[in-house]
Amino acid sequence: MTHIDSISEYVHTCGKHARRISRVLSCAKTAQKNQALENIASHLESQIQKIIHANGQDLQSGKQKGLSEALLDRLELDSNRIMSMASGLRDIAALPDPVGQISGLQQRPSGIRVGKMRVPIGVIFIIYESRPNVTADAAALCLKSGNAVILRGGSEAINSNLAIAESIQYGLKQAGLSEHVIQVLNTTDRDAVGQLVKLPEYIDVVIPRGGRSLIERISADSDVPVIKHLDGICHVYIDDDADIDKAIAVAYNAKTRRYGICGAMETLLVAASVVEQVLPELCRQYQQKGVELRGCEKTRKLIDNVVLATDSDWASEYLAPILSIKVVAGLDEAIEHISKWGSAHTDSIITENISNADKFVSQVDSSSVMVNASTQFADGFEYGLGAEIGISTNKLHVRGPVGLEGLTTEKFVVYGDGSVRD
Amino acid sequence: MTHIDSISEYVHTCGKHARRISRVLSCAKTAQKNQALENIASHLESQIQKIIHANGQDLQSGKQKGLSEALLDRLELDSNRIMSMASGLRDIAALPDPVGQISGLQQRPSGIRVGKMRVPIGVIFIIYESRPNVTADAAALCLKSGNAVILRGGSEAINSNLAIAESIQYGLKQAGLSEHVIQVLNTTDRDAVGQLVKLPEYIDVVIPRGGRSLIERISADSDVPVIKHLDGICHVYIDDDADIDKAIAVAYNAKTRRYGICGAMETLLVAASVVEQVLPELCRQYQQKGVELRGCEKTRKLIDNVVLATDSDWASEYLAPILSIKVVAGLDEAIEHISKWGSAHTDSIITENISNADKFVSQVDSSSVMVNASTQFADGFEYGLGAEIGISTNKLHVRGPVGLEGLTTEKFVVYGDGSVRD
Repeated sequence: MTHIDSISEYVHTCGKHARRISRVLSCAKTAQKNQALENIASHLESQIQKIIHANGQDLQSGKQKGLSEALLDRLELDSNRIMSMASGLRDIAALPDPVGQISGLQQRPSGIRVGKMRVPIGVIFIIYESRPNVTADAAALCLKSGNAVILRGGSEAINSNLAIAESIQYGLKQAGLSEHVIQVLNTTDRDAVGQLVKLPEYIDVVIPRGGRSLIERISADSDVPVIKHLDGICHVYIDDDADIDKAIAVAYNAKTRRYGICGAMETLLVAASVVEQVLPELCRQYQQKGVELRGCEKTRKLIDNVVLATDSDWASEYLAPILSIKVVAGLDEAIEHISKWGSAHTDSIITENISNADKFVSQVDSSSVMVNASTQFADGFEYGLGAEIGISTNKLHVRGPVGLEGLTTEKFVVYGDGSVRD
Repeated sequence: MTHIDSISEYVHTCGKHARRISRVLSCAKTAQKNQALENIASHLESQIQKIIHANGQDLQSGKQKGLSEALLDRLELDSNRIMSMASGLRDIAALPDPVGQISGLQQRPSGIRVGKMRVPIGVIFIIYESRPNVTADAAALCLKSGNAVILRGGSEAINSNLAIAESIQYGLKQAGLSEHVIQVLNTTDRDAVGQLVKLPEYIDVVIPRGGRSLIERISADSDVPVIKHLDGICHVYIDDDADIDKAIAVAYNAKTRRYGICGAMETLLVAASVVEQVLPELCRQYQQKGVELRGCEKTRKLIDNVVLATDSDWASEYLAPILSIKVVAGLDEAIEHISKWGSAHTDSIITENISNADKFVSQVDSSSVMVNASTQFADGFEYGLGAEIGISTNKLHVRGPVGLEGLTTEKFVVYGDGSVRD
């Protein structure tokens, strides 16, 4: 058997198992799913030493391969991180089950009653990179939302992921659920991914979590819908009618709270009429914090030590202590700039003017549109979703932070009484 | 300029116009959109003779090309059909506007208020076949839901479609809306379709309406999400605990009310325990109506003149007076059969047993799942959507009949008061 044949046989087997069990899981009782989550959490806690040992193997080979300190940090599991994984599972168990909710049931003139029932999507395939905690988080979100899942973590975390998978398998089994509900691929072969995304008969949706190149490769190859997160080029626009104190506080927070998250502001737009009230104080704070500023000519006239911004700056997701600043004539130019250069992720207006706020909210076509709030709020927990599998920059199905509901879909349910159509 | 270059220039121009205007249209007032719909309706009524004349050209060349009687009938417009197009536009004007609805707005511990706002998708590209009334219907649904649309009708209806497009352009203009809101392609060149579905920068979703080959070609070619309708292999399962009178009435209606619609039942499943009460009377009615019966061995033992059904029957969408019948042990075998052979469109159980009904509803993964109702109810108007652009057999975004809401998506809206994240 060739290499490709054996990978093919493996992924087809995984796919078939997942498809078959997804039908059973779709009507599993909430209590049973919660019990499995609790079992997995307890088992993880009881296996801390074993998991740390497996993780040690990954760390060692990571060092040998010359992984960066940042990557090694993301890979590392200690007892706190494992405890926190377990507590994350219990948090998901405590969330309401979205499956089976019926909305909008109404009686029609024909006598039938029609509504929509929230149901699992079916089988989800999640591909992720170095953080091993994603194995537990993603498994839990899929299980709670009634989906069978196939997980494929990064090759650098394979031992950690398989150790976590043991707890998952144990927890499922003790709750009377099949091991096929959550399958962690035991290969890091890229062909396994390439083949699975070509199998819509087994996989209903693919969620790639990781760098842009991974996401673009999966999107290009996949015959299955992809829920994806591309760039987060987020803007704050300080309007003519902004409250200056709020503007400075929000713009400072949006850039500096954390630089590396997708909701961090990358470009600040300021209405010309308030530039002199806003920029000197705000830029002083940025520069004191060590943020490199790149700005348009007008910004540079007002503030020292600002590099001239080019088009590539307006198109950049720095994820770093760098900020581009542009002075705009007003709301319309701000919306125009965001439409042209933004990534439809998260954009915020600072204004006391309700008409301007409304116009910004309706015309800016981003997954999150904010008024007088920091873009760093773009997060499933902050939004009250209880959990987050990622942030979607898709337009269809689900946009913005994706929680349990984003892992479900709706079908029509129709109740009659021997009803026939005229 | 080569042929492909000139097509390319044309579709890029259309795409750019659509994308640009979609931002304006997304916040057009409901009254303005309704006014445009009313204007189009009145103009259509005033242009009946002109439209019938253009349609006559299409009919004539259709006859020359040897189109079937059925196709010619679908193509033909008379004054009744044009009046009915106009009244369809007024019906859509009367529906509530889905755009701008905010749901679930809640205050979070951080002080921000978070909700979801319903917004247009953006730019929709609709490809359809011979019926020219789709030009008006599809345009109206997209306009009302705030989407710019590019329409590409069948080549056999090009003169009719362009005549209808004149009324559309007139109506938009009189309401102060750009002609680019609704663009009817003035070419029937296939390359125009092939190129547009490769332009996600301009097009957000493609809706192909027509035969399977059209839909499969578009789905294979498209780089843009496709809302599509594939097969309607619909089942009625008559359960052990069925009320026999209801069972016979529903199963008869599900097959014979109309044979050619996607919600028509194609396979009847009957629990073994009720076969002798159900089949003799029901099959007598079918055969009297002229329905050809194909059945399993057990069916054939009980009923005369039944051809032996093969696997290809279980997989067939006949759209004709033909029915396949299978006797099953009970509910589990029925669900298994539907999972294996169905097309996840519409399936119905006939039972008085609430547990069996619940199990069927939760385990059958179809866009519409029914209890004691005819599958022929699978229709946007019957469901109360007020209108229908088609039926989706996708799992994500929208399943089943697609009305105005299916042409929208949701984004998060966040309101703060100078809120910063800790």
